[in-house]
Amino acid sequence: MSQSLSPIPQLPTEPARRILRGMQRYFLECYGVGGVPEVTLATGRRVDFMAVDRKGLIWVIEIKSCLADYRADAKWQTYLEYCDRFAFAVDEAFPQEVLPPEVGLFIADPHGADCLRDPVHSELAGARRKAVMLRYALTAAARLTGVDAPPP
Amino acid sequence: MSQSLSPIPQLPTEPARRILRGMQRYFLECYGVGGVPEVTLATGRRVDFMAVDRKGLIWVIEIKSCLADYRADAKWQTYLEYCDRFAFAVDEAFPQEVLPPEVGLFIADPHGADCLRDPVHSELAGARRKAVMLRYALTAAARLTGVDAPPP
Repeated sequence: MSQSLSPIPQLPTEPARRILRGMQRYFLECYGVGGVPEVTLATGRRVDFMAVDRKGLIWVIEIKSCLADYRADAKWQTYLEYCDRFAFAVDEAFPQEVLPPEVGLFIADPHGADCLRDPVHSELAGARRKAVMLRYALTAAARLTGVDAPPP
Repeated sequence: MSQSLSPIPQLPTEPARRILRGMQRYFLECYGVGGVPEVTLATGRRVDFMAVDRKGLIWVIEIKSCLADYRADAKWQTYLEYCDRFAFAVDEAFPQEVLPPEVGLFIADPHGADCLRDPVHSELAGARRKAVMLRYALTAAARLTGVDAPPP
C-alpha cells in the first residue's frame, strides 16, 4: 500500500529539530508522556509536534526556528480547532516580541524547555477530540512500525 | 522519573517475536495501520499486541509460541473486557485443536499472517474504549520517544 511506503517525515531544519528535542524532553519530564512530530490533521495540514497528556488533553506545539519561518506560516490559527492546548516553541535567539502575546510560548534547546507563557486553552468537543486522538494513535503506531501514518 | 527509565519490553522468545512480526505485517497490509507490542492495561497486565484500526476499534492479539506458553496463560479471558476484537496468533507448528474454537485465530510467520477464524467481537462501552485508546496512544508515543509507557 502506498501509505506504507511513505518515508517518515521530519522537521526540515536542524534548528527546528533541536527545539523539537527540547519539547520532547519537556513533555517527558513534566507530564511523563512522549509525543509525535509531524502529525497530519484531517485538513491535510501537518502540525510540528503533538502530545497527548495523561488526562487525554491534546497539545499542539508549533516550532518556529527563525523569524522567516514564523512569517511564512499563516496557518497556525487553524490548528486551534484541533487541540486543547496550543503554544509556540522557539529558541533563545528568536525575537519573541513578534509573537502574539495571547499565545503560549516555550523557549527550548535540545536539553529541555521553559514555559514562558501558558498555552492557549481551547476545549475540543468530544467527537473532535476523539477523531484527533485516533489520528494521533494511528500515527504513533505507524511510526513505531517504521512507516508513516495513514493519509487523512 | 522512574517510568522514563524503564526499558521497553519485548516478547520473551524469538518464536513469539516471529509471530509478532507477521501480525504487524498483517495489520499494515490488511488495515493500513501499525500496532504496539506489550501494552499494559489498567489492570497492570500486559497484552502481547494491540492494534487500533481506522475505525477506532481496538484489537488484542495474544501470541502463543508453543503449547506450554498457551497452557501457562490463564488470563486471556480477562482481556476481552479491554478490546473490541480478540484473537490468538500461533505459528504453523502449534497444535490448533487445543485452542477454544470460539476464539479468533491467526497463523503467522515473520512474513505475514492468515486469519483462520474471525476474531471474537465484543463491543466496548464508550468510556472503556476511550480509556484503552488513551493508554494505547500514550504507550505508542512513549515508545517512539525511546521510553516505556507510563504505568497504569
